[in-house]
Amino acid sequence: MKIAIMLFDGITALDAIGPYDVFAATLKCEVKFVAKKKGLIKLDSNMGYLHADYSFSEVTSADILVVPGCSPPNYKTPMNDEETLNWIRQIHETTKWTTSVCNGSLILSAAGLLNGIVATSHWGSFDLLQSLGTIPTDERVVRQGKIVTAAGVSSGIDMALQLIAWELGEDMSKGVQLILEYDPQPPFDTGSPKKAPALLVEQIRGMLQEFAKREPNL
Amino acid sequence: MKIAIMLFDGITALDAIGPYDVFAATLKCEVKFVAKKKGLIKLDSNMGYLHADYSFSEVTSADILVVPGCSPPNYKTPMNDEETLNWIRQIHETTKWTTSVCNGSLILSAAGLLNGIVATSHWGSFDLLQSLGTIPTDERVVRQGKIVTAAGVSSGIDMALQLIAWELGEDMSKGVQLILEYDPQPPFDTGSPKKAPALLVEQIRGMLQEFAKREPNL
Repeated sequence: MKIAIMLFDGITALDAIGPYDVFAATLKCEVKFVAKKKGLIKLDSNMGYLHADYSFSEVTSADILVVPGCSPPNYKTPMNDEETLNWIRQIHETTKWTTSVCNGSLILSAAGLLNGIVATSHWGSFDLLQSLGTIPTDERVVRQGKIVTAAGVSSGIDMALQLIAWELGEDMSKGVQLILEYDPQPPFDTGSPKKAPALLVEQIRGMLQEFAKREPNL
Repeated sequence: MKIAIMLFDGITALDAIGPYDVFAATLKCEVKFVAKKKGLIKLDSNMGYLHADYSFSEVTSADILVVPGCSPPNYKTPMNDEETLNWIRQIHETTKWTTSVCNGSLILSAAGLLNGIVATSHWGSFDLLQSLGTIPTDERVVRQGKIVTAAGVSSGIDMALQLIAWELGEDMSKGVQLILEYDPQPPFDTGSPKKAPALLVEQIRGMLQEFAKREPNL
């Protein structure tokens, strides 16, 4: 199975690496990290890099396309770059599954792939997603036809396990979960706005909204 | 807070990137990816790279050291490299917390830091860990003094959230969990040998044991 994971400067590493390691653990997926220009890709923290081994021109099809997200406002650059959006549209025509993690769904939406359909995103990006003509929902993994969107950052792991179950079978998905020892035991249970204290949700919403007003600085 | 994440060829990306994104989300941690030689670091899948921004000689202390793991048998190279083990020992003298993810605990053990103490690892590496004089336990995050070991691959996320709670407070840890939307909903519940079907556990144990017999090919 051929997987293309799109990278761009300002990305959140875990959005890409969560799904990548699920696919890699199957030993049955060829994963390619692809960006507009190959080479080092700056992380949103400005404290490290991922690496794109392929440029857009070198990857013209995929069974699964993954578009990861980023800290706000770093999605603005790919959302406003016609070359990026055209590549997404081109790959989408060849995929069995076109997917996003976190606010990567904003980029899919900018490419015109989510018009009028239900999709998810990082909870902090629902307003922006809606303003683009997509109907936000707070489910963790959302399937609409061949488009699958996942919630914030870590949800890409759950999404990829689901894709593996659909494509390579439930036993493979269970095996990968065991290999990755994905038996989550966070010290608290505050991973969604429904579960976190309201004050904390509002503090973080405010912080993300402030970030979103900035211009990308990469 | 200064965090050093050690990289080496053949690493499992999620072992490093899970904790990294937890620390990064605090906006209060300076994270450095460090390796024997700086530059691109091959992933165990042979399908991509991480990037070490610093060489061992450039990082001489850290508040938290993270030693990630890898697919077997890639731990053999760092476990048998005196320069790597000496760097770990040197940094350990300066840390508040010395930690590992997955079979990164084998490398800590090779450095002599886990002699006779209780620690964890990927469940598939317990026998090897025990043969090195460490007492394996199947808890997900294990604290012994200032040494914290985590179970396989994805457990580094839980470990880092716990470290953040201890160092920067429970509210910060809860907030980071919410930013990363770490509200796991895998499609199955097979993330540990206690939960997965016995046949699946034995199949994967056998596969990992076969891998462990090979020589690193990186």
